[in-house]
Amino acid sequence: MNEHILPVPLEKAYRLLNHGPTVLVSSSHAGVDNVMAAAWACALDFAPPRLTVVLDNSTRTRALVEGSGSFVIQLPTVRQLRLTHEVGSRSLDAEPDKLARAGVVLMRMEGVAAPLVQDCSAWLACRLLPEPHNQQAYDLFIGEVTAAWADARVFRDGHWHFETADPSWRSIHHIAGGNFYAIGEALRAAD
Amino acid sequence: MNEHILPVPLEKAYRLLNHGPTVLVSSSHAGVDNVMAAAWACALDFAPPRLTVVLDNSTRTRALVEGSGSFVIQLPTVRQLRLTHEVGSRSLDAEPDKLARAGVVLMRMEGVAAPLVQDCSAWLACRLLPEPHNQQAYDLFIGEVTAAWADARVFRDGHWHFETADPSWRSIHHIAGGNFYAIGEALRAAD
Repeated sequence: MNEHILPVPLEKAYRLLNHGPTVLVSSSHAGVDNVMAAAWACALDFAPPRLTVVLDNSTRTRALVEGSGSFVIQLPTVRQLRLTHEVGSRSLDAEPDKLARAGVVLMRMEGVAAPLVQDCSAWLACRLLPEPHNQQAYDLFIGEVTAAWADARVFRDGHWHFETADPSWRSIHHIAGGNFYAIGEALRAAD
Repeated sequence: MNEHILPVPLEKAYRLLNHGPTVLVSSSHAGVDNVMAAAWACALDFAPPRLTVVLDNSTRTRALVEGSGSFVIQLPTVRQLRLTHEVGSRSLDAEPDKLARAGVVLMRMEGVAAPLVQDCSAWLACRLLPEPHNQQAYDLFIGEVTAAWADARVFRDGHWHFETADPSWRSIHHIAGGNFYAIGEALRAAD
């Protein structure tokens, strides 16, 4: 934890995900922590804030989420490009030291079972809303956001500040096979 | 239709959405066409390609999608920033000339019930997979992509070319209240 990490009011939490970044999903169950990358995470509701995330049946994360009933969604930055690609392409089952090899440093937040990945720009702690049909038929998981935080150097007062923050804070958006785009220029549609 | 619009193989269709752009949802039923903006659309599966989109109960689009069992998801560009904001903030019920006022020009694709919005960068024609519980409890709709097209000036050979295309082709990513970001720099994570 550092002094730049501030709570985000729950009614503004959807803004952390609204621009469609690739995220990291962290989870913990029975003493096992894991982190995976997911491009398929999306806001679902404003109040209470909810989100969807696709967790393939082959992932260890899925078992941890189903076991613990909770997870954290966080936004990696340009600085974490390699980390994101590594946790997205390596398996904890095949490589027990996956997190260390990818350079993941975890931190804990009071009252949150899953660990948080250090140096991300924002974090959304979620409680799983069990929907067995969605989970089995579509690998689709629904979470209700119970708390959110952001690094004030890039998100503060309810707004992203990508245009004035250091460029290393930009969110990353995966296409396929390790090819990403960073978020770009701010644009304003006149009312 | 113009000569730049080319089919996208279904197994590459997820790449059109993977970076989390704000999209336009078009639909048609019983002679009524509509277009709305949605930031909450997300890939759900590769093969067959599926996606999720959140359609609020108050939208006319939702009734058209439920009535017709189909819709088109398309990606507006920087040039369509105002159009996107307008179709996302005006209602067809309150303003029957909403589409004309927003500058929407529609085109038709053979075999696709919903109209396509001209000058977008990519289009995904979808068949609704009815999931009444998701639709009622979460406003969450699942579509299976039956055909996809992209403008070859920005997406070709299975890849986005934002970094070399004219900047007006960039995708737009809504945060809140008419504040968007364009997609930015290409980044490659080494294997």
